Amino acid sequence: MKPSIPKGTRDFSPAEMARRNYIFNTIRSVFSLFGYQPIETPAMENLSTLMGKYGEEGDKLLFKILNSGDFLRGVDRELIDNNALSKLTSQLCEKGLRYDLTVPFARFVVQHRNEIQFPFKRYQIQPVWRADRPQKGRYREFYQCDADVVGSDSLSNEVELLQLIDEVFRRLGIRIVIKLNNRKILAGIAELIGEPEKIVDITVAIDKLDKIGPEAVNAELAERGLSADAIDALAPLLSIDGSPEERLDKLSVLLSTSETGSKGVDELREILGAVRSLGLHAELDLDVSLARGLNYYTGAIIEVKAKDVAIGSITGGGRYDNLTGVFGMPGVSGVGISFGADRIYDVLNTLDLYPSSLLSGSKVLFLNLGSNEAVASMQMMKKLRAEGVSAELYPDAVKMKKQMSYADSRSIPFVAIVGESEMAENKMTLKNMMTGEQTLTTVENALELLK
Amino acid sequence: MKPSIPKGTRDFSPAEMARRNYIFNTIRSVFSLFGYQPIETPAMENLSTLMGKYGEEGDKLLFKILNSGDFLRGVDRELIDNNALSKLTSQLCEKGLRYDLTVPFARFVVQHRNEIQFPFKRYQIQPVWRADRPQKGRYREFYQCDADVVGSDSLSNEVELLQLIDEVFRRLGIRIVIKLNNRKILAGIAELIGEPEKIVDITVAIDKLDKIGPEAVNAELAERGLSADAIDALAPLLSIDGSPEERLDKLSVLLSTSETGSKGVDELREILGAVRSLGLHAELDLDVSLARGLNYYTGAIIEVKAKDVAIGSITGGGRYDNLTGVFGMPGVSGVGISFGADRIYDVLNTLDLYPSSLLSGSKVLFLNLGSNEAVASMQMMKKLRAEGVSAELYPDAVKMKKQMSYADSRSIPFVAIVGESEMAENKMTLKNMMTGEQTLTTVENALELLK
Repeated sequence: MKPSIPKGTRDFSPAEMARRNYIFNTIRSVFSLFGYQPIETPAMENLSTLMGKYGEEGDKLLFKILNSGDFLRGVDRELIDNNALSKLTSQLCEKGLRYDLTVPFARFVVQHRNEIQFPFKRYQIQPVWRADRPQKGRYREFYQCDADVVGSDSLSNEVELLQLIDEVFRRLGIRIVIKLNNRKILAGIAELIGEPEKIVDITVAIDKLDKIGPEAVNAELAERGLSADAIDALAPLLSIDGSPEERLDKLSVLLSTSETGSKGVDELREILGAVRSLGLHAELDLDVSLARGLNYYTGAIIEVKAKDVAIGSITGGGRYDNLTGVFGMPGVSGVGISFGADRIYDVLNTLDLYPSSLLSGSKVLFLNLGSNEAVASMQMMKKLRAEGVSAELYPDAVKMKKQMSYADSRSIPFVAIVGESEMAENKMTLKNMMTGEQTLTTVENALELLK
Repeated sequence: MKPSIPKGTRDFSPAEMARRNYIFNTIRSVFSLFGYQPIETPAMENLSTLMGKYGEEGDKLLFKILNSGDFLRGVDRELIDNNALSKLTSQLCEKGLRYDLTVPFARFVVQHRNEIQFPFKRYQIQPVWRADRPQKGRYREFYQCDADVVGSDSLSNEVELLQLIDEVFRRLGIRIVIKLNNRKILAGIAELIGEPEKIVDITVAIDKLDKIGPEAVNAELAERGLSADAIDALAPLLSIDGSPEERLDKLSVLLSTSETGSKGVDELREILGAVRSLGLHAELDLDVSLARGLNYYTGAIIEVKAKDVAIGSITGGGRYDNLTGVFGMPGVSGVGISFGADRIYDVLNTLDLYPSSLLSGSKVLFLNLGSNEAVASMQMMKKLRAEGVSAELYPDAVKMKKQMSYADSRSIPFVAIVGESEMAENKMTLKNMMTGEQTLTTVENALELLK
């Protein structure tokens, strides 16, 4: 009987909204400080835009919208008899809910190519939907916060994005490690061990190194058809140690015969050099096992982990060379990052890092002592609001005690009382709910206290 | 080949986002100033929550989401053979997209009744989706901005909401008329003409008075089964004139035999009296033909029209006595309003009322003269950003002219040049793009100019 919401979705109360808006506003401010501009795209995209972009599994996880009106018209009944779900879906549904912000962004760039100034720096903060099995920390509706620049292959974009990441987490007070890699280094490694066409298999397998350990990775590599020699050749490359600069020096030697690999090393060196000279709060780490499972990265790969909370990556991104090719606009290089708002929310909660002043209710509650008193109160509230002080009137003239406990439970810091005697003097009694202190004051003097 | 988006949906460019955010931020600030607190609900609701709440037509206009996985399992094949679309829909789909913010809010209140402090003042700014036929000014995805207070039947809530509306449009610079009515007056009228059970028919018909004129309304009333006597008796009531106060006085006499009608007059008088004594910028109008076609209003009915643009209502609302009853929680009275962001956007565009400083791109573009110069520029940008000045680097070291025209087309007001000679002095050449003026300056002095 009690109403509920679909599993994997959430309601957000005022207290949760205050915390979430703190995160979104922080990210939004920094995006803007770095010259990124906002866009928004529709929640619904044509399925032709979405299908085939996230792999076979992704296609299944798209939420599809049943066509309006006579949705059975033109549907091939044989598909129903044969339970041909996938084909049937494309006849029943033309639209789906957006699955991430990257594909809609690529579609946006191609569709509006003639109105856009390139290089185009955009940010986008919107929810996405995935029909994943809900579990702790994984939702079917969640927000992504993406910043991308397209139409430039300069490494200064990577340098800027690393600074942007650093500034967001500095403002949030979260200590982080930024892990860096370059897809070209992975390609160089595949080349070096004589399995250049196996780069995707190698990438997918070694991406799991942290989770499943080297032995299981080797088993998976063997399963994916890598020779024992190749697996042996891979081992020393995956266990290079030292500072990022030391690792790059060692990699540079190991990959010297691979042109692609060397280019990857050079790119990372340039990015690292610039970022070091600018100075970051974050710790930097070079991690050649970092691949982020995504096949579309072609250059830098970036991942951020919180230092003080054991949770997956809280931000990630990288460079892609052909984001818009699939929509008929080839040769547009780009680089972007995506902040995971929900995990950042969990980290801030775990570490209790929210500013104490966050709950943004009214500054003052006017008690309601009757209709004349209410109008007199509203006169005063009008003056307070004109100066930016949020104020509300308890709407019903119920017992004082009930009204006071309402102020208390809502954490409203001041209560104003305008009774007969106050009305006669055109004043209010202002009570500080923290200290209990009461003052009889004009609205002008109250302003001083409340501002 | 060129990608597109579903009809009735929109992409928003940075320039459009700036305008839309101006509207949303204005409304949000005023909501907050009046003590309303934000909540958010999921885009998807269970269809059991949504169906039957918007009438038969509304049920059809809901976007439904195809069940994930084997959506044919358990589906009654006979329904397919019989083209029983409506029953089939409920087997194929468990979830739908939210159609407005009111029903999700009612569901929220019931679901979280034990955590909520009543009276509960909440606002909600989120998109809604309707499978309406798209036309000029009507979209399939659009934002609603709602503020409601539930758990109080005090008329001070109406008074507060009218002030809130007034303040929003004052800030936006839109001159408005606020039309007021009360459902109890409509009920009184129906009682008076001896057709109390026909109130819904009367309401629906006279709501069209402005659009189709009195004759067509009378024809419709006859069609809906009203006697000629009743229609004659209705005429004088619908053409009462004078100031709102004068109209109320006349209505008070006409409706004196109807208890409900008299109560409606008294309520409006109290609201009007309080609002007048507080002072509004908006013009007030009493319109007994105002019904807003919604059957759930039980008291005050509010509608806002722009004075200087011929467009439908740009805000509306009213009191309802049993919002949550349908979810098993009776007796919760509430009153709310909803701002139509898209129409307000159109009005502001038509009247060209946006602040000139709205486009919020970077304050300064650093030209890129090579990689050493770029790093030197980024050092300076870091100092500017630390003081809140948004800055960006043109990422590629292409021709100056191209970089300058990028700054121009993006309306970036300042360009900074850090070449070899500037680097030697640790300075920049700062160019004001409006005046063409150039200055050689330190970053500290540049800050003064840019802040």
